[in-house]
Amino acid sequence: MFSGILAELERNLKKLPGVGNKTAQRLAMFMVSMEKKEALDIAAAIEDAVNTYRHCEVCNMLTDKEVCEFCSDTTRDDKQLCLVQNTQDVYLIEQTHEYKGKYFVLNNLLSPLDGIGPEGISFPALQRLVEHREVEELILALNPSAEGESTINFIGSRLAEKVHNVTRLSTGLPFGGDIEYTSSLTLSNALRRRYSVKE
Amino acid sequence: MFSGILAELERNLKKLPGVGNKTAQRLAMFMVSMEKKEALDIAAAIEDAVNTYRHCEVCNMLTDKEVCEFCSDTTRDDKQLCLVQNTQDVYLIEQTHEYKGKYFVLNNLLSPLDGIGPEGISFPALQRLVEHREVEELILALNPSAEGESTINFIGSRLAEKVHNVTRLSTGLPFGGDIEYTSSLTLSNALRRRYSVKE
Repeated sequence: MFSGILAELERNLKKLPGVGNKTAQRLAMFMVSMEKKEALDIAAAIEDAVNTYRHCEVCNMLTDKEVCEFCSDTTRDDKQLCLVQNTQDVYLIEQTHEYKGKYFVLNNLLSPLDGIGPEGISFPALQRLVEHREVEELILALNPSAEGESTINFIGSRLAEKVHNVTRLSTGLPFGGDIEYTSSLTLSNALRRRYSVKE
Repeated sequence: MFSGILAELERNLKKLPGVGNKTAQRLAMFMVSMEKKEALDIAAAIEDAVNTYRHCEVCNMLTDKEVCEFCSDTTRDDKQLCLVQNTQDVYLIEQTHEYKGKYFVLNNLLSPLDGIGPEGISFPALQRLVEHREVEELILALNPSAEGESTINFIGSRLAEKVHNVTRLSTGLPFGGDIEYTSSLTLSNALRRRYSVKE
């Protein structure tokens, strides 16, 4: 629809998740319509963040420091390690206020079809960290998807002898969910993993 | 959720239409995760567009030239003038391939409560343009909303003597719409404006 510089902006915005043709056009037009300084601040904020953020040297999460705020926080329990797929997941878990241990970000899940093997999920670094810290509980907080399950199985079996307790997030019905609209896989798993109402 | 530079990016992204907390966080995290060059290109594209685009000296639309491509196109009919609320609307009308006249962008609709009077919608400039070009048809392609209607009434009455034909977009049921889910205002208007099936 647009041409020249505006088309270039539209093309660039479409790289973002959830931004298709229509949204890109709307955002592009909005940006050239808004207060010039406000719009330039957006560009500057992107540059700042992109130029500053890198992966934490210890846990791989995206951070503006060499070692992230979680790894350098000495009040957090070093013996608990929570594995997540990406940095966003760290913040989601933090919002629950349920966890006070450390994190490790895989940045990927095992996916032989896409050529992602143990190195692609930083497994060697994870193994060294687990041994060095003598981790007592390893929480595999990964999606219960095909790739998530195979990653859970792989890490679970490889580190079973090194870590006393390897756990994964509970699976079952989501709160607010409706049995009628639940997949039979979820439902049969929920039935199998049923627990006493007194728990 | 985020802090520091990432929070600043999140705050900036929330200025955009349709971007709330969750989307801003997702976009911010995506940008610092993606290829650095790709992300910096987005910022550069925003800067380029914002620094280049300004309002056309003749019709007010946003353009990367002093006079926009439509105003400077001599193959377009000078005697037809289509009034739209904003630049986006120009492109939407262009996509229909139904119109070969010129445009004029109001950038606002009349809204006494928000202090937007005739100057706020560039009415003096519109009046000069209409007189200078001896416009024969003025199409008021504005939303059939409260502000749109009062703008249509205002411009229609003020320019009735200067322009032979002042028209507005047809109102009625949208194609693909369902009478059951149509507001009674739309339905009663559609009934009043019914037309012969032979038209």
